[in-house]
Amino acid sequence: MTVVSPGDLVAEVLAGRATGISRMMSYAEGHGDAARAAMAEVHRHAGRAHVVGITGVPGSGKSTLVQALARTLRASGRTVGIVAVDPSSPFSGGAILGDRVRMNSLAGDPGVFIRSMATRGALGGLARASHDVIDILDAAGFQMVLVETVGVGQDEVDIVQAAHTVVVVSAPGLGDDIQAIKAGVLEIADVHVVSKCDRPDAAKTVVDLKGMLSLGAGRTDSSWPVPVLPTSAQNRDGIADLVACIDDHRHHLDESGEIAVRRRRILEMRILKAAEDIVHERLVKQQGERLSALLDRAVEREIDPYAAAADLLDGLADS
Amino acid sequence: MTVVSPGDLVAEVLAGRATGISRMMSYAEGHGDAARAAMAEVHRHAGRAHVVGITGVPGSGKSTLVQALARTLRASGRTVGIVAVDPSSPFSGGAILGDRVRMNSLAGDPGVFIRSMATRGALGGLARASHDVIDILDAAGFQMVLVETVGVGQDEVDIVQAAHTVVVVSAPGLGDDIQAIKAGVLEIADVHVVSKCDRPDAAKTVVDLKGMLSLGAGRTDSSWPVPVLPTSAQNRDGIADLVACIDDHRHHLDESGEIAVRRRRILEMRILKAAEDIVHERLVKQQGERLSALLDRAVEREIDPYAAAADLLDGLADS
Repeated sequence: MTVVSPGDLVAEVLAGRATGISRMMSYAEGHGDAARAAMAEVHRHAGRAHVVGITGVPGSGKSTLVQALARTLRASGRTVGIVAVDPSSPFSGGAILGDRVRMNSLAGDPGVFIRSMATRGALGGLARASHDVIDILDAAGFQMVLVETVGVGQDEVDIVQAAHTVVVVSAPGLGDDIQAIKAGVLEIADVHVVSKCDRPDAAKTVVDLKGMLSLGAGRTDSSWPVPVLPTSAQNRDGIADLVACIDDHRHHLDESGEIAVRRRRILEMRILKAAEDIVHERLVKQQGERLSALLDRAVEREIDPYAAAADLLDGLADS
Repeated sequence: MTVVSPGDLVAEVLAGRATGISRMMSYAEGHGDAARAAMAEVHRHAGRAHVVGITGVPGSGKSTLVQALARTLRASGRTVGIVAVDPSSPFSGGAILGDRVRMNSLAGDPGVFIRSMATRGALGGLARASHDVIDILDAAGFQMVLVETVGVGQDEVDIVQAAHTVVVVSAPGLGDDIQAIKAGVLEIADVHVVSKCDRPDAAKTVVDLKGMLSLGAGRTDSSWPVPVLPTSAQNRDGIADLVACIDDHRHHLDESGEIAVRRRRILEMRILKAAEDIVHERLVKQQGERLSALLDRAVEREIDPYAAAADLLDGLADS
C-alpha cells in the first residue's frame, strides 16, 4: 500500500474515487488530530447531497426498501450513498444469503457506495462516525445519501433525525407489541411507508397509520402533510412514488425555508454529540489514574458516580 | 402537598415508603445540586440488591417474563423492584390492555415497586436516570431489581450491561431478520431464556442457541457456563428454574470474586456516562450564546462540528 497524505486523501474523496472514499472513512475513525483536520476539509465541501433517513423496527422490510430505492434512483441516473447503522441490515452482513446476493448487484455499480457501521463495541461515537461517513459521501458528490437505522434505541433515532427527510417503514402484521414501538418514532416521520403491500393485511396498516396521523401525531412542520405510501419492494410497486415523494419533500424544505431550520438543528445535535465524544476520549486517555482512584472510592461507596464524574471533569479542566 | 426536605425524602426512601420512593425518583430527575446531594446519600445506602437485566428484541416476550418472575419472587417472600426502559413494555403503557390488567395485579402489592422510564425526548441522561432509579429501589430495601430494556440500541444495551446478572430472552419463530439482532446481545448474556416454549418451534430455538454458545459465543467469564432455559410465562413453566438460575449466578459471582470486577466495571460506566451528561448540561446551559455563534459559522461551513465542539469545550474550561 502506498502512503497517502491526508490532503491527497481529501482530494481523492472530492474526485469521487472509491478507494479514496473507503480509506478516508477508515482514517476518520482513527480520531487523531490529522484525521479531524481532514474531516474539517471534507465538511467544507459537503452540503449538496439530500440525506434521507430510513428507519423501522426489525422485520419492517426497510433494508429491502433501501435496496429498491437505490436501484430506482440509479435507473434515473442519480448517484447513491448508503449508510447502514443496523446490525440486522444485509449491508452490515447481518441478514440472510438471498439479501446479500441482491445487495451485491448494487455493489458492483460505481454510482453506488455502501458503508455499514458497527453498532456494537464502540463506546459512544456512533453518531459522530455516521455523520463523518455521510459528509464523506456528500463531499464525494453522491446526490442522495440513504441512512438506514433500526428504529429503536436513542442513538439510532438521533442519527436518523439528523437527515433532511425521515422515512419511517411499517410492515403489516408484525403484532401489537412490535408496532407499539412505532409510537416512539411516529413523530419524526416526514414520510410513512407501509412495506409488503402485496399482503392482504397491508390495507389495515395504511388505514391505522392515517388514523394516527389525523389524530395529530406527526412532525411539528404543519405545512407538510405527512403522506402514507404503500409499497412492495419485491415487485417494485410504489418505489417510484416514494422517490417522487422524497423529491417533493426536498422541494418543500427549500421553498418553505424549513431546510435552514433543519440544517441548524442537525448541526447543533452534531456539535453537542462531538463535545460529549471529545470529553469521553479525554477522560479515558488523560485521567486513567484519577479514574482508577475514584473507582476505588466508589466501590467502597465513599463517593457516588455523579460526584466522581464532577471530580474527573475538574481534573480535566486543570490539566 | 406538604413540603418535604431532601433529607426527609432520603429517610422516607430508606424506610421503604412508596410515596417517598416515587417522590425521590421524580426529584432525582430534576438534576439540581440538592437532588445530586440526596442521590449521593441514597447511593451510600445502596449495594445490597441483586440487579438483574432482562433484554430481548420486541416481541420476545420479555415483559411477560418479567411479570412472571416478579410473581414467583413475591410468592417466595422476596421484594421486587421493576425498572422498565422499553417503549413497548406494558409497564411503560406501550402494550395491549390484557398485559396492563395482569401488571396491575402486581402494582397493588406493596412488595413490588414499578417504575417506567421514558426513552424518548430526554437528550441523553437515560442511563443516569435509570441508575438513579435502581439505586433508590436498592436503598429502599428491594431485594431484587429487574431492569427490562429492549435489546436494540446502544444506550439500552449499556443500561442492561450494568446489571449483576444479564438475562437475554429469545422467542421461537421471530424470523431471521429479527433474530439477527440477537447476535449483538449474545455476548452479554449470563443466562439465555427461550420464551413461549409451549410452541412447537421452541425446541429448535433452544438447540440453535446452544449451538451458538458451543461455538464460543458468550461472555468473557469462562468459569460460568451460560445456560439456555426454556420457559413459558403463560403457564409459568420454567420460571422457578430461572429464579434458581439467577440465584446460582449471584452465588457464582460472590464465590469467584467476579462480583468485584463487575461492580467496578459498572461504576466506571456510570461515572463516564455521568461526566458526559454533566458536560452536555453545562454546554447547553452556560454556552447558549457561544453555541449560537458557532452554529451560525457551522451553517456557513466556516467551521466543522468537531472544531465547534472543541471551541465550546474551551469556553467551558475558561468559564
